[in-house]
Amino acid sequence: MKIVSIHERTVPLESETSNAAISFSTMTASAVVVEIETAKGRFKGLGFSSYGRYGHGGLLNERFIPRLLNAQPEDFIDQAEGNFSMLNFWDVLMQNEKEGGHGERSGAVGVIETAMWDAWAKSEDLPLWALLARDVGHADDGGVAAGETVIYGSGGHYRNDAVDAQDIADEARKCFDDGYAWFKIKVGGVSPVLDNKRIEAAIRVAGASQLIAVDANCSFGNNGLNVYLKQIDEFSLRWIEEPVNPLDYEALTATIKSIQTPVATGENIFAVADVVNLLRYGGLTPGRDTLQMDIVLSYGITEFLRMLSFAESGGWSRRDFIPHAGHQLALHVSSGLGLGGHETASVLDTPFSSVSVDTKIEDGYAYLSDKPGIGIEYKPSLYKYFDGMLN
Amino acid sequence: MKIVSIHERTVPLESETSNAAISFSTMTASAVVVEIETAKGRFKGLGFSSYGRYGHGGLLNERFIPRLLNAQPEDFIDQAEGNFSMLNFWDVLMQNEKEGGHGERSGAVGVIETAMWDAWAKSEDLPLWALLARDVGHADDGGVAAGETVIYGSGGHYRNDAVDAQDIADEARKCFDDGYAWFKIKVGGVSPVLDNKRIEAAIRVAGASQLIAVDANCSFGNNGLNVYLKQIDEFSLRWIEEPVNPLDYEALTATIKSIQTPVATGENIFAVADVVNLLRYGGLTPGRDTLQMDIVLSYGITEFLRMLSFAESGGWSRRDFIPHAGHQLALHVSSGLGLGGHETASVLDTPFSSVSVDTKIEDGYAYLSDKPGIGIEYKPSLYKYFDGMLN
Repeated sequence: MKIVSIHERTVPLESETSNAAISFSTMTASAVVVEIETAKGRFKGLGFSSYGRYGHGGLLNERFIPRLLNAQPEDFIDQAEGNFSMLNFWDVLMQNEKEGGHGERSGAVGVIETAMWDAWAKSEDLPLWALLARDVGHADDGGVAAGETVIYGSGGHYRNDAVDAQDIADEARKCFDDGYAWFKIKVGGVSPVLDNKRIEAAIRVAGASQLIAVDANCSFGNNGLNVYLKQIDEFSLRWIEEPVNPLDYEALTATIKSIQTPVATGENIFAVADVVNLLRYGGLTPGRDTLQMDIVLSYGITEFLRMLSFAESGGWSRRDFIPHAGHQLALHVSSGLGLGGHETASVLDTPFSSVSVDTKIEDGYAYLSDKPGIGIEYKPSLYKYFDGMLN
Repeated sequence: MKIVSIHERTVPLESETSNAAISFSTMTASAVVVEIETAKGRFKGLGFSSYGRYGHGGLLNERFIPRLLNAQPEDFIDQAEGNFSMLNFWDVLMQNEKEGGHGERSGAVGVIETAMWDAWAKSEDLPLWALLARDVGHADDGGVAAGETVIYGSGGHYRNDAVDAQDIADEARKCFDDGYAWFKIKVGGVSPVLDNKRIEAAIRVAGASQLIAVDANCSFGNNGLNVYLKQIDEFSLRWIEEPVNPLDYEALTATIKSIQTPVATGENIFAVADVVNLLRYGGLTPGRDTLQMDIVLSYGITEFLRMLSFAESGGWSRRDFIPHAGHQLALHVSSGLGLGGHETASVLDTPFSSVSVDTKIEDGYAYLSDKPGIGIEYKPSLYKYFDGMLN
């Protein structure tokens, strides 16, 4: 395997939404194309960064792309097996990087690894989910089969315009009409009174509180908000997501003890070293709570497999993982390895909305196609960012 | 206070050294100049990134410089006090940044904040140590006075050339001759036999094992090395630095329990959220172990004050902090706030070696001058990187 070229483009996402913590009006992302040459020909892999952490053009061009271009083809070969190894590829990316400090670079490595997986799957003439099921192995628990996954919709953002309960109800209705398993909305960004109306409106449409989850974007760290949290707890929702700062394990433990609702967290934890601490000190329970580490933001699949491995050694199952963000990589990993499901924005028209057009969504499940790679080409709202990069 | 301009330049550091973990041959750093205008005139502040984590040109130009240039002068004013506020400045830098993921951006924010502190101190016609002593306050424990600090030398790197015990002895001798309080060398990168010879050579020159510290750069995470660690423990050295991965609090706790020698750690922990976890779960003891968070790599002085505050609430003293890396910012913070000391490379000719020429080193102490700012202008091996940026 030889790397022919790598190109990165930083693009504005121009979203008018916000959550309890930040505005997304200046958010950017990186589109990456890696061209490789193997015995079977030349293949172009596409990667796109995840949501909420900006593009990685600076880091990619300063460090990660030069390392790959300076590497020799043999650097990518597993010496024991004699084959191309994604672990070797990853080790080249991480040359001369110190331990700790897992942010930003984890997204730069993740997006370039995504493009490499896409290229590699194409060279094997397989969709990534099938390549992963073949080479890593799908969960053998008799649950959802390889090539399929549970899928839920997230939305209910705060907009610059006034948001009211009717908007949330309309979003929820569209989400369930489109076949998603459950719906998630934002909380913690406005008054408890208004948030309660939003939650009630969503439950009314869903028909059951277990079909509604809420995402607090860390806004319950402050003690004064505990009453508010208790109030949300009484709805018996599917989960309360990121109630507190992702690294405050003591506050997370205290929050979990104070409520009945399961907790979901992990989207702002970017390395196995931090996942180890989250699971050791965060008070989370396997089979009840949900782990949402974002694969693209967290050094890619190579590091995600280390997270799975550590979690499984502590009694967690792959089904407890539902990765963050709604990108094609998470869709393929979820259906290829047998995770608990896939999240995607179900209503907004963004690069992280819905799934590629070759994927069918029905009765709460996504059914992936046999098209090679991760399918960015089949997601027009995302593929447009690669315009002119593939000639 | 108005920001007139901000310029960044990424420069190669071209060091031939390495430690147990990485080679520094491709290491880069950022030189930053911030020009401000106040009622007293225009002032140029200089900042330089710390060591080991590369330059931050991409992140600075993509996110942090535009945010400052887009801000209005009133954004920097504390509304209650009516004055310029470094906290407001910091909040502008961190607009629309999510929680967690404390790496890379923490260094970008830190280097630009450094330049701002330099400019601000110049506008007050004070060295930064005096500005900090005035506005934040020096330790009132009767220890080393403001404007002075204990200073120790670090060196003993592995070089591409064969390193032998004689080299270490020569380095140690120069370090003590130059007036440093103690000397630190690298371990864990070669065989225990060779490392032991290096340690013995250093102790022989120092005359006491308490005057020698060792830095393992996380190389003792592997169980197989425990015997080696015990062997080092028998020397009764000043401290063993970073024995394990900075985020592996369980391994750190176990390591501390297994040895008598104090531990120093923290240079790869970049935010108060991570310091909280290190102090809660890492098994460290106030008054015995040393905390080495790197102020420039960790979002600057604003965040460092939060770290001090949390640590002090748990029984730690400022004297337990000896920041990483040997930059002028750490020198001024140490002597301005009354930390436990200052580290600098004592022998190599690098931007992180020694101190500005207006600083006197004698009998284990550094005595800072009254020149305004942080003194990059008076450190030729560092100032050269700003050539042409100050016209």
